[in-house]
Amino acid sequence: MPDADRPFAEALSDARDLAARTIDQHLDTKAGDLSAEITAAMRYATGGGKGLRAFLVLEGARLHGINAADAAPAAAAIECLHAYSLVHDDLPCMDDDDMRRGQPTVHRKWDEATAVLTGDALHSLAFELVARSRCPAEGRLALVASLARAAGVAGMVGGQAMDIAAESAETPLTLDQITRLQAGKTGALIGWSAMAGPRMAGADPSALGRYAESLGLAFQIADDILDVEGDADRTGKAVGKDAAAGKATFVSLMGLDGAKQRARDLVTAACDALSPYGEGAESLKAAARFVISRDS
Amino acid sequence: MPDADRPFAEALSDARDLAARTIDQHLDTKAGDLSAEITAAMRYATGGGKGLRAFLVLEGARLHGINAADAAPAAAAIECLHAYSLVHDDLPCMDDDDMRRGQPTVHRKWDEATAVLTGDALHSLAFELVARSRCPAEGRLALVASLARAAGVAGMVGGQAMDIAAESAETPLTLDQITRLQAGKTGALIGWSAMAGPRMAGADPSALGRYAESLGLAFQIADDILDVEGDADRTGKAVGKDAAAGKATFVSLMGLDGAKQRARDLVTAACDALSPYGEGAESLKAAARFVISRDS
Repeated sequence: MPDADRPFAEALSDARDLAARTIDQHLDTKAGDLSAEITAAMRYATGGGKGLRAFLVLEGARLHGINAADAAPAAAAIECLHAYSLVHDDLPCMDDDDMRRGQPTVHRKWDEATAVLTGDALHSLAFELVARSRCPAEGRLALVASLARAAGVAGMVGGQAMDIAAESAETPLTLDQITRLQAGKTGALIGWSAMAGPRMAGADPSALGRYAESLGLAFQIADDILDVEGDADRTGKAVGKDAAAGKATFVSLMGLDGAKQRARDLVTAACDALSPYGEGAESLKAAARFVISRDS
Repeated sequence: MPDADRPFAEALSDARDLAARTIDQHLDTKAGDLSAEITAAMRYATGGGKGLRAFLVLEGARLHGINAADAAPAAAAIECLHAYSLVHDDLPCMDDDDMRRGQPTVHRKWDEATAVLTGDALHSLAFELVARSRCPAEGRLALVASLARAAGVAGMVGGQAMDIAAESAETPLTLDQITRLQAGKTGALIGWSAMAGPRMAGADPSALGRYAESLGLAFQIADDILDVEGDADRTGKAVGKDAAAGKATFVSLMGLDGAKQRARDLVTAACDALSPYGEGAESLKAAARFVISRDS
C-alpha cells in the first residue's frame, strides 16, 4: 500500500476493531442468550473482515460532525448484516463455499442448521444495534428503514437471487443486468454505509450516495479481476470459480483491460462526488483507490 | 367454535386479511424489486396462516387507543417475521418439512436457495414495515429494538437452536429446559405482538406481557397435544413427528391429561393478567381459549 494511503489503512483497521468491540460488548452484556453455540458462531462470522463498511459509516458520520462512539452501533450493525449475508451465501444450496476470510465457512466449521440460524441471528442483531445508534430518533428510524430496504428484495437479497438465477439461465447476463445485480448484491449495503452519517445528522445523503454508487461498482469489478488474477492464499477464498462456472463477470464482458479501465474511471467518479466535502474527504478518496488496488 | 367466540373468529380473520393486504400493497408499490421470483415466494409464504400474531398486535393497539390502520404495519411485520421463521425452520437442514399450512413448503415448491433468500427478504421486510408504523418516533424505535431482540439469539433463534441441539442430545430435555426453549421459539414473537400496542402508545406493556407469556406457553402445549391427537388434514402439516423422533414434548413430560390441565391453567392465568383492561379485553380472552381448543 502506498505511503500516502497510510492514514487510510489505520482508519480502516480502527473501524474494523471498533465494530468488532461493539459487537463483542453487545453479545457479552446481553445475558439470556439461549444458545452459546450460536453466539460463538456469530463472533466467528463477524471476525476477519476488512471492515470497509464500518469505515464508510464512521467516515460519513465524521463528515457530518458525528463522533466514532456515537456512530459505532451503526458501524457494528452493517458488519453484522454483511456477515449474515456471507454466512447464508456460502451455504451448500447457495454458492457452496468451504472457505471465507481464510477460515472454514460456518456450515463447514459447525453445520448447515447452525449457519442458517447464525445468519438469522446476525440479521436481527444488525437491527437491534442500529435502533440503538446515538442520534435523534428520526435519524435512527431513517437508518432502520433504509437498512431494511437495502438488505431486502429491492437490494441485497434481490441481487443474490439474480445471481443464483443466472447460474441456471441459458444465456449469460448482459452488462446492464450484471450492473443491476451488483448494485443490489454489494452496492446496496455499501451505499447504506456511506449514507448512514448524513442520515443520522438529518442531512442530505445524496453526495455520499453518488460516491458509494461508483465505489460499490468499482469494488465488484475489482472482485471479478481478483477472481482472475488473485491468489487464493491472499483472498482467503477460492479463485477462478466464476470462469470455471462459465459465469458472466465484468471481466468476461469487458475484457481484463476494459474492466481495469472502467474501475479506474469509477474511482475518479467516486472522488469527484466528494467535492462538497473538500479536504475532509481524503480518507474516503483513499478508500476508493484501495478497493481497486487490494489483493484480497 | 362456540358461538360466544364468534366475534373473536371474525376479529382473527379480519386481522389476517389486514396483514395480508398490507404486505401485498407494500410488495406492489415498492417497484424496483430485482427478483419477481422472490417476491412471489414472499407472498406465498405469508399466505394461509391463522393471523394470531397480527390479531394480538391489533387488539393490544386497540386497548391503547390506536386504530387498526395505524397498527397495520406492525401487524403485517410480525406476520412477515413469523413466516420467515417457518420458511427457514422447514429447510432440509432444519426440520425438513414438506408441507406447511396445507401447501408444499417454499423449498419444495421452489428450491432451497429460494427458501433461504425468501426467509431473508421477509426478515428485512418485517423491519421495514415496523419502522413505518404510524406512531411517534420513540414508539417506532421501541418496536424495532424489541422485535430485533425477540427475533434474535436471546429469543426466537435461540429457541430454535436449542430445539435443533436437543435432537442430537443424548438425554431428552427437562420440563424447565423445554419451557425456556418454547419461551424463545414461539413465546418471544407472541409476546412482542401483544406488547406492540402499549409500546406504540408509550404505555406500560407489562400486563399484556404477562398475558402473552401464559398464552405463548399454552399455545405450545396445545401444539404438542395436536401432534399426538391432531389430524394432518386439518393441521396442514405432518403429525406424530415428535413422538416418532423420541423428542421431549410437554405431553411426553407431563402426560396427555397433565398437559391439558396445564394448558387450561395457563389460559386462566392469561385471562387474569388482562384484569386492568376490564371488559375491553374480551377478544384477547377468547384468543386464549382459542389457542387450546383449535384443531389446526
